[in-house]
Amino acid sequence: MADTVVRPIDHTEHSDARIDVSVVNDALLGTWADIRREAREMIKDPAFWRIEGQPMTEHRERTLAQLDLLVQHGASMRAYPKEYGGIANQGGNLAGFQELVLADPSLQIKSGVQWGLFASAILQLGTKTHHDRWLRDAGEMRLPGAFAMTETGHGSDVQAIGTTATYDPQTEEFVIHTPFRGAWKDYLGNAALHGRAATVFAQLITGGVNYGVHCFFVPIRDENGEFLPGVGGEDDGPKGGLNGIDNGRLHFDNVRIPRDHLLNRYGDVAPDGTYSSPIASPGRRFFTMLGALVQGRVSLDGAATWGSALGLYIAITYGNQRRQFDNGAGETVLLDYGRHQRRLLPLLATTYAQAFAHDELLQKFDSVFSGANDTEESRQDLETLAAGLKALSTWHALDSLQECREACGGSGFLAENRIVGLRSDLDVYVTFEGDNNVLLQLVGKRLLGDYAKQFKGKQPAELAALVAGQTAGRLFHGAGLRRLGQAVADLGSTARSVELGLRGKDQHQLLADRVQAMVADVAGRLRAGAKMGPAEASDLFNENQNDLIEAARAHAELLQWEAFTDALERIEDAGTKQVLTWLRDLFGLGLIEKHLAWHIINGRLSTQRAAAVTRYIDRLCARRRPHAPDPVDAFGYEPEHVRAPIAAGAEQARQDEAAQYYATLAATGKAPKKEPKPPKR
Amino acid sequence: MADTVVRPIDHTEHSDARIDVSVVNDALLGTWADIRREAREMIKDPAFWRIEGQPMTEHRERTLAQLDLLVQHGASMRAYPKEYGGIANQGGNLAGFQELVLADPSLQIKSGVQWGLFASAILQLGTKTHHDRWLRDAGEMRLPGAFAMTETGHGSDVQAIGTTATYDPQTEEFVIHTPFRGAWKDYLGNAALHGRAATVFAQLITGGVNYGVHCFFVPIRDENGEFLPGVGGEDDGPKGGLNGIDNGRLHFDNVRIPRDHLLNRYGDVAPDGTYSSPIASPGRRFFTMLGALVQGRVSLDGAATWGSALGLYIAITYGNQRRQFDNGAGETVLLDYGRHQRRLLPLLATTYAQAFAHDELLQKFDSVFSGANDTEESRQDLETLAAGLKALSTWHALDSLQECREACGGSGFLAENRIVGLRSDLDVYVTFEGDNNVLLQLVGKRLLGDYAKQFKGKQPAELAALVAGQTAGRLFHGAGLRRLGQAVADLGSTARSVELGLRGKDQHQLLADRVQAMVADVAGRLRAGAKMGPAEASDLFNENQNDLIEAARAHAELLQWEAFTDALERIEDAGTKQVLTWLRDLFGLGLIEKHLAWHIINGRLSTQRAAAVTRYIDRLCARRRPHAPDPVDAFGYEPEHVRAPIAAGAEQARQDEAAQYYATLAATGKAPKKEPKPPKR
Repeated sequence: MADTVVRPIDHTEHSDARIDVSVVNDALLGTWADIRREAREMIKDPAFWRIEGQPMTEHRERTLAQLDLLVQHGASMRAYPKEYGGIANQGGNLAGFQELVLADPSLQIKSGVQWGLFASAILQLGTKTHHDRWLRDAGEMRLPGAFAMTETGHGSDVQAIGTTATYDPQTEEFVIHTPFRGAWKDYLGNAALHGRAATVFAQLITGGVNYGVHCFFVPIRDENGEFLPGVGGEDDGPKGGLNGIDNGRLHFDNVRIPRDHLLNRYGDVAPDGTYSSPIASPGRRFFTMLGALVQGRVSLDGAATWGSALGLYIAITYGNQRRQFDNGAGETVLLDYGRHQRRLLPLLATTYAQAFAHDELLQKFDSVFSGANDTEESRQDLETLAAGLKALSTWHALDSLQECREACGGSGFLAENRIVGLRSDLDVYVTFEGDNNVLLQLVGKRLLGDYAKQFKGKQPAELAALVAGQTAGRLFHGAGLRRLGQAVADLGSTARSVELGLRGKDQHQLLADRVQAMVADVAGRLRAGAKMGPAEASDLFNENQNDLIEAARAHAELLQWEAFTDALERIEDAGTKQVLTWLRDLFGLGLIEKHLAWHIINGRLSTQRAAAVTRYIDRLCARRRPHAPDPVDAFGYEPEHVRAPIAAGAEQARQDEAAQYYATLAATGKAPKKEPKPPKR
Repeated sequence: MADTVVRPIDHTEHSDARIDVSVVNDALLGTWADIRREAREMIKDPAFWRIEGQPMTEHRERTLAQLDLLVQHGASMRAYPKEYGGIANQGGNLAGFQELVLADPSLQIKSGVQWGLFASAILQLGTKTHHDRWLRDAGEMRLPGAFAMTETGHGSDVQAIGTTATYDPQTEEFVIHTPFRGAWKDYLGNAALHGRAATVFAQLITGGVNYGVHCFFVPIRDENGEFLPGVGGEDDGPKGGLNGIDNGRLHFDNVRIPRDHLLNRYGDVAPDGTYSSPIASPGRRFFTMLGALVQGRVSLDGAATWGSALGLYIAITYGNQRRQFDNGAGETVLLDYGRHQRRLLPLLATTYAQAFAHDELLQKFDSVFSGANDTEESRQDLETLAAGLKALSTWHALDSLQECREACGGSGFLAENRIVGLRSDLDVYVTFEGDNNVLLQLVGKRLLGDYAKQFKGKQPAELAALVAGQTAGRLFHGAGLRRLGQAVADLGSTARSVELGLRGKDQHQLLADRVQAMVADVAGRLRAGAKMGPAEASDLFNENQNDLIEAARAHAELLQWEAFTDALERIEDAGTKQVLTWLRDLFGLGLIEKHLAWHIINGRLSTQRAAAVTRYIDRLCARRRPHAPDPVDAFGYEPEHVRAPIAAGAEQARQDEAAQYYATLAATGKAPKKEPKPPKR
């Protein structure tokens, strides 16, 4: 491979290896492939499809009706315990819901509001009495509900919400109250129209003490859909997407609810007003409650990945048929243009990496929430992983859908070809269930914590060894996230044996090393903060915030790369393995190219090898080109999932018709002649 | 300045310099500030405003009615010759139209279809008989029209369209015909509903010879809005944005039009069918006709810039009021976060660069189309400049609006806050009036041509000197685009005197040098193509296409940088000049950071200096922070232009109310106490 830079591209190399589409489809669909296939079969029914251009009011009613359809198909309560009608399949439940993004993202998210947030709050934060009373009704849509956490004034900082729930021991009730406009609950699905109740997060106050944010079950509308006394609200109106969901605002004017409407798994109030909790630390209690709702982020990671995949299926299928500009040997197929390859194929590689990383995330989620491995540590790992992957995949969805839309030109802008609708709907994924920047900061803080931990209680000599040695990587990445030590440790030798220095193990070393160095760098700069006052320390942190977030992004990229590589190792078919290795290389080298300056500045790549990265990516794109349809076919989408006319043969039919017309015209001898060249002046 | 890397940020430095908002406003509004202000005054009338969430059908009718309003305000025909009711102000006309983007991009683009494309084709491609017959009616909306160039099968490659216009000397008519589905005219504004006529581009065939693409005036609908015999079409339906415009398709079944409906400025057919043209070369004739319609691209560059500015006004105003997370000294204002600064301020700097570059483009447009400097060379320069700037600014609009939307969180996703709507509408700007990638390739080819020209007719010794010497820059950038020679020539000395090496002149050298090296590099690699067959040569080109497009992008970035720098030199107020210089540095260093690896790999920056680029940008962001409201205030937007509640004080009012509530509560002594810390385990 040392010759890649100097040897011109060998065009015969292409045909060597092909993937086995069904093998790859199995790998991509992952652990819960059966439930994914079941969901895809179900949504072949046009009743589930988004109607492009449908006005908001009708779209909202249609989406509500689709939730009833899900109930009829038994697709709403897979996560429920068996005694409440479910099958207690945590991973499978999320896998099934994600696939709804293909039908209509509004449907996916409205389901998520009803079952992933509202019912899930009852299940995860409530206890048996709550489950008995509300789970079935919520599961079967007799009780549509809103999840009332975010306020107009506080989104990312949930701990600072203003809504209060003050306990009145006289009547054994909580008084739910909104003290000012900024404390209105906002952006809540099901709040504008359909919600009959809400799980309301509020500051729990009893005996004059604020015990922090807890969740309460609050009825909000009567049988006729009218607000109950003391409850008010308004419609959020049209949004940038997801207009099948009735997002709205809620506020409460001293609304009284019985004491047992507190969802009391992690904190309870006795009739006399005494507070008790199984978790003594207020901070840990708060994060435990929020962590119980991590499934939203897990879901979005998968849905964003499969949404990107659909966009790429459409754009790449079209790019393999559409022709533009005659190169002297006929019109060129778009995907034969170097630029077009460069635009789409790296995005495809990233989508693959995400699909594999998501399945690992889903397994981790399943093992925690099924109880198979439910420890505080595994929960923290899950939250960190979900935060990092959700941030990257939701941003990637917007980037890739936009590139797909542009790659389809004017056709891409028509709603019928679906890409613009998907992009609009997925836009909000990057800020809901946690703003991506805030999520990455959370990951960054975890990395800083892990980094600090390795120094804790160590003797100076051990510390020096740690700081000097590459093996720090082993300790640094924390339990539960994949350990880097192994690969890093043996790279000293492999680096010499791979001439080009850009093979899998080299990619891993470069990516892993970068995470470690960036975290160490930020940690070093933040150390001075320990001796500062809060304002100064906060300034110092803010100056380093961007770098910390970039470190967290690098970490999540590494995890995706590792997941892709692990998936490769499970593939047995040689051709498939070869093609997927190229795709993995495209992903890995793409990450390295993106941060190329960093690798050079920090002495990880010589300028010569750095220059080879770009050339090698160009080569991989050209090599991948003839295989382009296979990897998108491996997503397993059927016509009822795609629905975009330009990816359903309409373009090919037009090309054929035009070619036939010109051929016939030429055969008749009636074709107009070309204008003669003007005489030279 | 050599200390920027090691010295912590000096927070007192901020307050030194402030901009004079009105001085900057004048500079940004540019040469036709008066007409821009007149247009902004006009669109304060709510009748011009987009109604968020309005269904497509009503939105289309509203936009049509707004065009009548423009006529009533005398805002439709500024570009017309005086004898047809205009004021023959070419630059001012485009400046005025661009401002409509603040009211509703659908209005801006529907105006563009009617007057910038349809009427403009009559004016630019037709002759007196056509002007007399149709200009006034088109100008005053008695004759709404479509501009029928693009076909479903051919967008970027207009030369290959399939529609034919065959001359019949028997009846002295042209027969307009659509031979197959791919040749349907597509994506045409005014085609689905409102157009009564169309300027149709078709292959002109007479006497059995195809003379290439020409433009014809074709009536399409009768007084009742019904298609005329032989004309058909369909609605493009809902789109990703711009749904106030009735885009649609048209096809023609042997539709006959009189001979004099050929817009015959650049090519005519005599009654007997003899073809004649003032331009002998078919290629040059084609590009001259297309070039006459360059105003669409010029307009989009300005509209995209002012649309970005509006998004940044909203997000930065909000970021200066919104608070989140308590740092121990109260909740932090978003723009105090390092990340938030990094997200928004570089985009602001780019928007400034674009505004200044656009005014230069508009001046060039005016000088060509007013006839003041209308040569083939100046037309080519104008087209190249328009192509490069339009590509960059329309992409920037999407990037910056998306970042603004995310920076406003959930509020940013609500239609009422306008960012999502702007982004959706501007989406198609990156592919219409020329796909951005195709436009940049056009710029790249021009650069290659200029590069080759300098070698033409030179003796070997001269060539060697050219290739070796920095002064190649002087010749290379071609007439009309700013010459680089001057600044490059004297940098040998200045580079030593500026310690940090990142000042204005250094930025210029780095940016200019990169363009030149990239073009030379691609040119060198393409040289082998001269000896190849068409298919092989085409493969070689495609392998280098991505690099050529990147070179073109670098060139356009350089032009924006130069325009910003030239604008700085015209500022007299010291504080303004200082702050704008920081902003220019932020723009220039941002470009250098984006391509940092290139500068290192190619020996233009040491790794040490390269590392300083990022630190210096961080420092500039922090330094710029306190001035953030000033530069967005300088856009000169008034409440009727902004309209987004979050940028109109609603957030500040909520913050104040909440603070007041907590202060009052504390004063009464009734505030709940904090939960006591749990006993240590």
